[in-house]
Amino acid sequence: MRVSELSERAGVPLPTIKFYIREGLLPGGTPTGRNQAEYGDEHLERLALIRALRDDAGLSVAAIARALRAADANKEAFIGAAIDAIERPAGPRIDERSSAFRQAKAEVLALIERRGWALSEADLSVRDATRALTVIRRSFPDVPIEIYAEAVDLLARYELPQPSKAETPSALLRYALLGTVLVEPFLLALRRMAHGSRSRRIKCGAAIEPAKRPTRSVRKPRR
Amino acid sequence: MRVSELSERAGVPLPTIKFYIREGLLPGGTPTGRNQAEYGDEHLERLALIRALRDDAGLSVAAIARALRAADANKEAFIGAAIDAIERPAGPRIDERSSAFRQAKAEVLALIERRGWALSEADLSVRDATRALTVIRRSFPDVPIEIYAEAVDLLARYELPQPSKAETPSALLRYALLGTVLVEPFLLALRRMAHGSRSRRIKCGAAIEPAKRPTRSVRKPRR
Repeated sequence: MRVSELSERAGVPLPTIKFYIREGLLPGGTPTGRNQAEYGDEHLERLALIRALRDDAGLSVAAIARALRAADANKEAFIGAAIDAIERPAGPRIDERSSAFRQAKAEVLALIERRGWALSEADLSVRDATRALTVIRRSFPDVPIEIYAEAVDLLARYELPQPSKAETPSALLRYALLGTVLVEPFLLALRRMAHGSRSRRIKCGAAIEPAKRPTRSVRKPRR
Repeated sequence: MRVSELSERAGVPLPTIKFYIREGLLPGGTPTGRNQAEYGDEHLERLALIRALRDDAGLSVAAIARALRAADANKEAFIGAAIDAIERPAGPRIDERSSAFRQAKAEVLALIERRGWALSEADLSVRDATRALTVIRRSFPDVPIEIYAEAVDLLARYELPQPSKAETPSALLRYALLGTVLVEPFLLALRRMAHGSRSRRIKCGAAIEPAKRPTRSVRKPRR
């Protein structure tokens, strides 16, 4: 289809499509003449993915561009590259030369080794996990982390099953990117729900003793 | 101890302590005279908790105040109340009168019922989960959500074990609040790691076909 038809079918204005192509969010069409190019279903799907990432996941166009450029630049492992490039919150300031950070990194790399994950310390998700663990260790020096790896492995096997031959790369990319970012707030809300429910069953009196008034003799009212 | 000693031992300036008491983050001491009050270890612990929530978890003082006031106001279920009151990201705009939101709510309430969770739709975490699910359903109408409930239940049983009698309420509050917020970025980073690792093992060609150049005969350079 021509770019005008693409614009109409996707409900995306022509200047926006041109902007997306310029910024690397959308591959260009196949040139068919000096000023013409042919667009296909994969462009329609890509435009739908961009809209969902922007409107539903709340990502900025710059962040979407980073993730999609990463996918397009890594033909072999485009899903992993895209997930790794998704915007993430900045988190607290951490000195990555500190011994606390180095210890957390050793712990994360040992976890990767134990689980046989195909990851290296160059991956941004590994760096994020290391930063988060550095902060956890300030308050909880000894809490084991294996259980979290178990839980996400359980989820990943379920969320990213071996795809059937019928699935197109753009369907896989959509599934992996949206699945990662849309499910994150749901997972955290569910975790708070499970904590809230469980803690309601833990009985242990008041959070902190209320301030006592200066002692005065208190007599029971007579009946 | 006097408030001056509390300030020195906690490393928190006196005006800050007074501000925390005024704003309901820290209970007042036990009055011992007209202008004097006695502070205890629970005040030291509370100040350490406030600092960790501010510096390590990155919460605003207003958000910490909401969580701690909720804990202090709910003697019976102070942990659940505090977790429920913790600051959470705003998320996308959602019309809570829409049928999509109502459907997601029915789904979340059915999940709570199935899992026997002690929660109601008044809990903020339930509302957050409903909002997140509304957005998920736009892209994935049929993906089952039970697996996520399984995963967080697995974690909650491990993260909030039945406390021993020796544990004080303020130790429990610290454990539950910091455990909830500090682990969140770690859990999300680990999930992206698991996705990244798993997707690298999925082979399915390029993300999207690159634009083809107009056909020209290409000859191999002669040697």
